[in-house]
Amino acid sequence: MAGCRMKLELSRVALGKGRLGVLKGLGKTGQLSLEVPGYLLHTHLGTVPHLTQDTLSTLSTLPSVTQITLSNIAEHQEVLEEFKDGFRKFAGLHDTVLYCALHDPATPCPTGHTTNKTVSVWGSGGRIELTVAKFMALQKAVKPDWYQSMADGETWQINTSHKRELEGVEVFGVVEGGDILEERVRSAKETAKRPVSGFCLDGLQTGSMDQALRTQLISVVTKELPEDKPRLLQGVGRPDEVLESVEAGVDLFEGFFPFEVTERGCALIFNFNISSNPELAVLEPGEDQETAGDSQHSGDLNPDDQTQMTSFEINLKDKRYQGDFRPLLEGCGCYCCRNHQRAYLHHLLVTNELLAGVLLMIHNTAHYHAFFSALRDAMAEDTLDLLKRRVLGQTERKD
Amino acid sequence: MAGCRMKLELSRVALGKGRLGVLKGLGKTGQLSLEVPGYLLHTHLGTVPHLTQDTLSTLSTLPSVTQITLSNIAEHQEVLEEFKDGFRKFAGLHDTVLYCALHDPATPCPTGHTTNKTVSVWGSGGRIELTVAKFMALQKAVKPDWYQSMADGETWQINTSHKRELEGVEVFGVVEGGDILEERVRSAKETAKRPVSGFCLDGLQTGSMDQALRTQLISVVTKELPEDKPRLLQGVGRPDEVLESVEAGVDLFEGFFPFEVTERGCALIFNFNISSNPELAVLEPGEDQETAGDSQHSGDLNPDDQTQMTSFEINLKDKRYQGDFRPLLEGCGCYCCRNHQRAYLHHLLVTNELLAGVLLMIHNTAHYHAFFSALRDAMAEDTLDLLKRRVLGQTERKD
Repeated sequence: MAGCRMKLELSRVALGKGRLGVLKGLGKTGQLSLEVPGYLLHTHLGTVPHLTQDTLSTLSTLPSVTQITLSNIAEHQEVLEEFKDGFRKFAGLHDTVLYCALHDPATPCPTGHTTNKTVSVWGSGGRIELTVAKFMALQKAVKPDWYQSMADGETWQINTSHKRELEGVEVFGVVEGGDILEERVRSAKETAKRPVSGFCLDGLQTGSMDQALRTQLISVVTKELPEDKPRLLQGVGRPDEVLESVEAGVDLFEGFFPFEVTERGCALIFNFNISSNPELAVLEPGEDQETAGDSQHSGDLNPDDQTQMTSFEINLKDKRYQGDFRPLLEGCGCYCCRNHQRAYLHHLLVTNELLAGVLLMIHNTAHYHAFFSALRDAMAEDTLDLLKRRVLGQTERKD
Repeated sequence: MAGCRMKLELSRVALGKGRLGVLKGLGKTGQLSLEVPGYLLHTHLGTVPHLTQDTLSTLSTLPSVTQITLSNIAEHQEVLEEFKDGFRKFAGLHDTVLYCALHDPATPCPTGHTTNKTVSVWGSGGRIELTVAKFMALQKAVKPDWYQSMADGETWQINTSHKRELEGVEVFGVVEGGDILEERVRSAKETAKRPVSGFCLDGLQTGSMDQALRTQLISVVTKELPEDKPRLLQGVGRPDEVLESVEAGVDLFEGFFPFEVTERGCALIFNFNISSNPELAVLEPGEDQETAGDSQHSGDLNPDDQTQMTSFEINLKDKRYQGDFRPLLEGCGCYCCRNHQRAYLHHLLVTNELLAGVLLMIHNTAHYHAFFSALRDAMAEDTLDLLKRRVLGQTERKD
């Protein structure tokens, strides 16, 4: 456990009401921290899709942890080994905690390729089968601050012995078990015994089960996990599911949701403002109605869920926005909303201009970030119920 | 000619050696200017492809004139008319002179659709046939500072009478005539009689003829045009062709070349440094050899020229850059070169990350801009021959 400096300080824990706190001691010097509930910055090859580091830095604050994915990186192992200085420097990143996950939550990957001794990831060139030795060699070349263990119960012993090679790197153990409660509990108990810094809750992603079952599984599993280590839920990003999962005991999420919304030409406009001061209300009451008018949404259990529009967004490709000269979201202070109208975004999208993605990504990232701030504020002020009603109301009205 | 405030001040004119000067009195207040030889900022729907206005502003200087294209805009006429404030505001542009051309030089468009009374443009929804009335209504909705006349000799009379509707807008007349010298001279003489602010040299684009014929046609045509009005050459952007065309009497170019280079995953690295001070040399001698190694280049007459790699660039998709940890161009101060290496760009390209386009576009735009500065400096210092040898040497070596 040498070099394991990550420390979770919880300021508020209430059963069924989530955990509020700060993950401290992050980064090479231990000076960085991450508020929980929170999310990791989702990247492809170290970059937030569509955005340069410069554009990204125009957003006021961002998560201090950047998630990269082995599936993107595995095929470049040779180059990284030659480069020697690790992926952070290779990708021109600075001042961020680097977390290396196995799979990209925004890219569906085939199941059933994990054996007792290997795990498979999918890069642009197809499947790459990773043995423990290859996995550890890759992590050595990547040099992350944290990484997701490839090990389940079976491969853990081998993995542990190799782990000593990576001094100072924190490992997140994986809790598996599909939708079988007993298997989940067994996996949680086993993984809790390991010298890990945190836990990845795997196999609970959007589309694989409904939220009721997910909440139930998470609630039971987190009871088996030590209080003082963070729990990262993989593959869940929808605001309604985030809220429910936080209540069940999740601390961290993968931040891929704004990217998915952007890729389908949509903008997040859901309301998370629970201020009673009307001057602070971000959205007009009339604005709220708007989402309800969109026909497509997903409330149902559907394996293709992730590519479907949710009720938290509007589809700028829709002809109705052709002559709409308002910003994406009235009152939003992001670069896109300060400079452009929906009509312009609509025209960029219908003419396939890449700038559409850049502008939507700026707005969606800013809005999602603000949602997590509002979530933590609500927990601190004991108004989570109010926030939940506000956000979930925007789904249920349509089911 | 009311409202026609554009003024070309030439500081140096030498037959066969080009014209050096400044185009003054631009913009609503007449405070903007553009150095010639120069180029117009190429945009799609008002935005430089891949870049936000914010990212764009990280480039130290840019042309003060932005080119937009009717073919992109024609299908949005209704919305612009409803918007009322013109395209500049619609696209969130500021402080730029807006020049509205007919066709996008980076998008090939079918020929043979121009009649005596109409001209056709191609938007995302296919061909749009513009009558003079529709054309003028569109310009009224777009509200550019300059626009390219749709008129050739035949339709000019009608156009002129409509022109009075657009007070203060400058019109560029079009010189046509294909590759027939007599037709070119006739068109130049006719257009020179019109109340235009400048001239578009049409039908001479890369791929339609070789540079020797283009140079010959331009040299003869420009003799027929008044000295004090700018000449814009359409569809030519390659550095070697720019140099030859400037010598023949061209002042302005369409700035689409950096975009084309970016779209094929390439980076401009050609050397235009003619300083004898070795400390100022941008490129190492060895660097020069590099381009020569690329197999693909275009020196031949080929209608597909525009999509082919030239000898002024390197193809970052090439496997040779996989482990190349140098910046795109040693000594370049652009955002991309300061922060990233060729190997990273290579990996972004092979994994189809959109950021590749953003980063390449930043570098290519910066490099192209610097090339035009070097061109003007060389003209001022009477070292154009040296610059030509430097730049053309990078082509000829490979033919």
